[in-house]
Amino acid sequence: MSRLNSFIRRLVAQRDCLDYAATLISDISGPVLELGLGNGRTYDHMRDLLPERDIFVFDRQVAAHPDCIPDDFHMILGDFSSSLPRAFERIGAPAALAHVDCGSGDVASTKAVAAKLENLLPALMTLGGIIVSDQPMSHSGWQPLPLPEGVPQDRYFIARSVAC
Amino acid sequence: MSRLNSFIRRLVAQRDCLDYAATLISDISGPVLELGLGNGRTYDHMRDLLPERDIFVFDRQVAAHPDCIPDDFHMILGDFSSSLPRAFERIGAPAALAHVDCGSGDVASTKAVAAKLENLLPALMTLGGIIVSDQPMSHSGWQPLPLPEGVPQDRYFIARSVAC
Repeated sequence: MSRLNSFIRRLVAQRDCLDYAATLISDISGPVLELGLGNGRTYDHMRDLLPERDIFVFDRQVAAHPDCIPDDFHMILGDFSSSLPRAFERIGAPAALAHVDCGSGDVASTKAVAAKLENLLPALMTLGGIIVSDQPMSHSGWQPLPLPEGVPQDRYFIARSVAC
Repeated sequence: MSRLNSFIRRLVAQRDCLDYAATLISDISGPVLELGLGNGRTYDHMRDLLPERDIFVFDRQVAAHPDCIPDDFHMILGDFSSSLPRAFERIGAPAALAHVDCGSGDVASTKAVAAKLENLLPALMTLGGIIVSDQPMSHSGWQPLPLPEGVPQDRYFIARSVAC
C-alpha cells in the first residue's frame, strides 16, 4: 500500500474512532483531554463534535494552525511528566474522553511517551470515560473496546476506564 | 467542516485524481513529472500506480521520508524557474503525466508558483498528456477535464495537453 493510501487510512480511522467515542460518552459528564495538539486538526474535529464540552489540550509547544489553538486556560504546556500530575486542579473534574495522538517517526520515543501516559492519564479519567489512542496502551483499569466498523485493528485503540 | 474532515477530503481527492489520471495515460508513452516532492507520499503513490514509468521529481529541497526519495538522476533540485527550462535534456522525452502539488498556507506564494508552472510546464508535456494539479491552472493548450466521480469541483484540477 502506498504511503498516501496508508495515511488516508490512518486519518479516516482516527476520525471514525473520535466520532464513535463521542457517541460513547453521550451520557457521561466531564471535560475532554487532547494529549498532543500537533497541527490542531483533531482538536478542531473534537470541538466540532463536542461543542458543549471543555477541551483541555496538552503539548510541549504550540505549533498548530492559528485557528486551532485553544485559549490559554485550556492549553496546558509542558512535558506530560510535569503537566499531567498537576492538571486536575485546572481541569476541575474527571474527564469523559481522552484522545492520545503521540505517535512520531521515532519508535522508541513514541513508546516512552505512551508509557508515561499509561501511568499518568488514568488518574484524570472518570469511571466509564473513554480513551482513544493512536498507540497501543494498556492499564489494569482500562477495558479495551472493539473499534468501529471498518477501522483496521492495528490502526487505533479504544478503551473504557472501569477503575482508576 | 472540521479541518480533519477537510484534510481527509483533500487527500482522497488527490488519490482519486491520480488513480484516474493513470488510466487516462494508459495509451500514451512518456515519463511522469512530480512538481513538489514534499513528504513523498504522492511520489510513493505514483510509483506504485505506474511502476514501468520514469518519474522525475522537482523541488527546491529534499524533505521527504527516506523511503520516498528518488535517485539523484530522477530528483531535479532548484527553483522551478531555473530547473524546468533545463529539464528536457535530462528527461529525454515529453511527459505523459505531470502532478502539481504546490499549495502552501501562503496564498500569494502559491499563486506565484502556479503561474510559473503554467508558463514552464506546457513545453515539457506530450500531446494528449495529462496535468493533475492542486491549484487552478489554465493554459491555452490545456483542455480542462471533468474530475472523477465524488471529487468536489474545487479540490483538484485535471487537464489534457492538446497543444504545446
